[in-house]
Amino acid sequence: MYIFGVDVGGTTVKMGLFDGDGNVLDKWEIVTRKENNGENVLPDIAKAIKDKMAERKIDKDSVAGVGLGVPGPVDVRGVVHKCANLGWDVLDVNETLGNLLGMKVKAGNDANVAALGEMWRGGGKGYDSIVMVTLGTGVGGGIIVDGNILTGAIGAGGEIGHIHVQDEEEDACGCGNHGCLEQYASATGVVRLAKRALAASDKDSVLRGTEISAKAVWDAVKDGDEVAVSVAEQFGKYLGLGLSAIAAVVNPQAFVIGGGVSKAGDVLLEYIKKYYMPIAFHSDRDVVFTLAELGNDAGIVGAAKLVLAD
Amino acid sequence: MYIFGVDVGGTTVKMGLFDGDGNVLDKWEIVTRKENNGENVLPDIAKAIKDKMAERKIDKDSVAGVGLGVPGPVDVRGVVHKCANLGWDVLDVNETLGNLLGMKVKAGNDANVAALGEMWRGGGKGYDSIVMVTLGTGVGGGIIVDGNILTGAIGAGGEIGHIHVQDEEEDACGCGNHGCLEQYASATGVVRLAKRALAASDKDSVLRGTEISAKAVWDAVKDGDEVAVSVAEQFGKYLGLGLSAIAAVVNPQAFVIGGGVSKAGDVLLEYIKKYYMPIAFHSDRDVVFTLAELGNDAGIVGAAKLVLAD
Repeated sequence: MYIFGVDVGGTTVKMGLFDGDGNVLDKWEIVTRKENNGENVLPDIAKAIKDKMAERKIDKDSVAGVGLGVPGPVDVRGVVHKCANLGWDVLDVNETLGNLLGMKVKAGNDANVAALGEMWRGGGKGYDSIVMVTLGTGVGGGIIVDGNILTGAIGAGGEIGHIHVQDEEEDACGCGNHGCLEQYASATGVVRLAKRALAASDKDSVLRGTEISAKAVWDAVKDGDEVAVSVAEQFGKYLGLGLSAIAAVVNPQAFVIGGGVSKAGDVLLEYIKKYYMPIAFHSDRDVVFTLAELGNDAGIVGAAKLVLAD
Repeated sequence: MYIFGVDVGGTTVKMGLFDGDGNVLDKWEIVTRKENNGENVLPDIAKAIKDKMAERKIDKDSVAGVGLGVPGPVDVRGVVHKCANLGWDVLDVNETLGNLLGMKVKAGNDANVAALGEMWRGGGKGYDSIVMVTLGTGVGGGIIVDGNILTGAIGAGGEIGHIHVQDEEEDACGCGNHGCLEQYASATGVVRLAKRALAASDKDSVLRGTEISAKAVWDAVKDGDEVAVSVAEQFGKYLGLGLSAIAAVVNPQAFVIGGGVSKAGDVLLEYIKKYYMPIAFHSDRDVVFTLAELGNDAGIVGAAKLVLAD
């Protein structure tokens, strides 16, 4: 049995061919043609799949289906409601691509789909109720309950980057609100906290006078740099607060932390747990904190798994 | 087709006989015998059901099953993990009561089951993804996603009363933490806020020198009492904050507000929305706020619905 897993990004579409156990048999990319409201995106994907099937002499009957992760809200029926990154308005992906291919197609939000991938073959392996937290340019989330994506009424389930964690914030978040988790725990957020900490003190720091990145901050934390450590404390405080609220709602088995910032490794988890534990409900203190393992492949792996989910 | 819905409380067990559409055909109560670690509770319920079937000449084949709401954490397989209110330790309710009756039995946490009831026949009618918020002595919650209870890894899903909303709190919550939502939005919490507000000001207030209840506070809010209004503002702030976090996680269609405090009516919703809207993620601003309708019957109605859920 074969499954195609597709991760649609604003620049490239990542594609994978999998067997039924989630082993990747082939992996390639095509360009995302966004012109004319992205009208070519799905036809291009259909062509790439047909070409791959011809190349490998794969019969349509042996393909269980095609899963897709899309960078925008997708409802449970696979309908995208506006996807600015691709130029799409309302688009029924399951039906449109399904008709082009004559196969079962299942689309989901990319962050949610990546969470499914980490549960199947990555940091969340062995669990069926996890929260994936992606600390990248923004903070994304994917919530899996009993093996299924928590999609939400209009596809906005797991938008955990926009949990309100700070009342005094003067800068606006990308969403327009003030004090969202994303403003402190994303790569951009960590840099912002570092700049503020440097401006507010005259302590010596390896970060002073340099081009600051989230990586540089976490490297400095590991070296015991006082200013960097104060940033890590704030990062831990806001993320610990956000995750404790998520836990009170869904009572997960595991938090899987991924995205660029998570490359800092276990030190990250220590700062999160330090602030999470004292405020988490007692039933939520046994949750496992772990790092994501699939990197950029989480999307295609999770998309393949989406085909198998009920 | 008949269904029995059972709501197990610490003092009485509420019982209902329903048809397949959730219409109540009969309603009665038995005493909860908690002695000897509550060993009689399930046998007493089995006997009450058998007696009712004999009285009404109901054949076993025409009963779809028995649903139960239990005041403690219950996992997806109907296993209770410690229920202090009933004296139970680990107990497989589905199996134990199922064996006594020779019928399908499904147990869930009482707050979650009540949420299912409000979705089926009450304030959440017409929706399949709701968050029920019960403002009683404590703050309970029940989260329904696509028609099913979000149970959580160890049955602690929807424990929204223990979302951390205040860093400065010195009093401890019943759970041992400090600054839980329950400390501000429950009946007890509203009274506590009122006492603090009275002590902190010398403004005239109808509440001064009286035995304060949550009802008295909300009555005073409706009369424009300044101290009471300041309490309502705090109540709205903390509950609005908690609900906005829940929405970012599950993106529900509706919040259904129930419990004793909700008898204050629509004024309550106004104070919640005032603080919810500015911090909620934009996709969560269309959520409907509504009041619970079933009162004490939510438990038996939801228990009956549990039998029909997949």
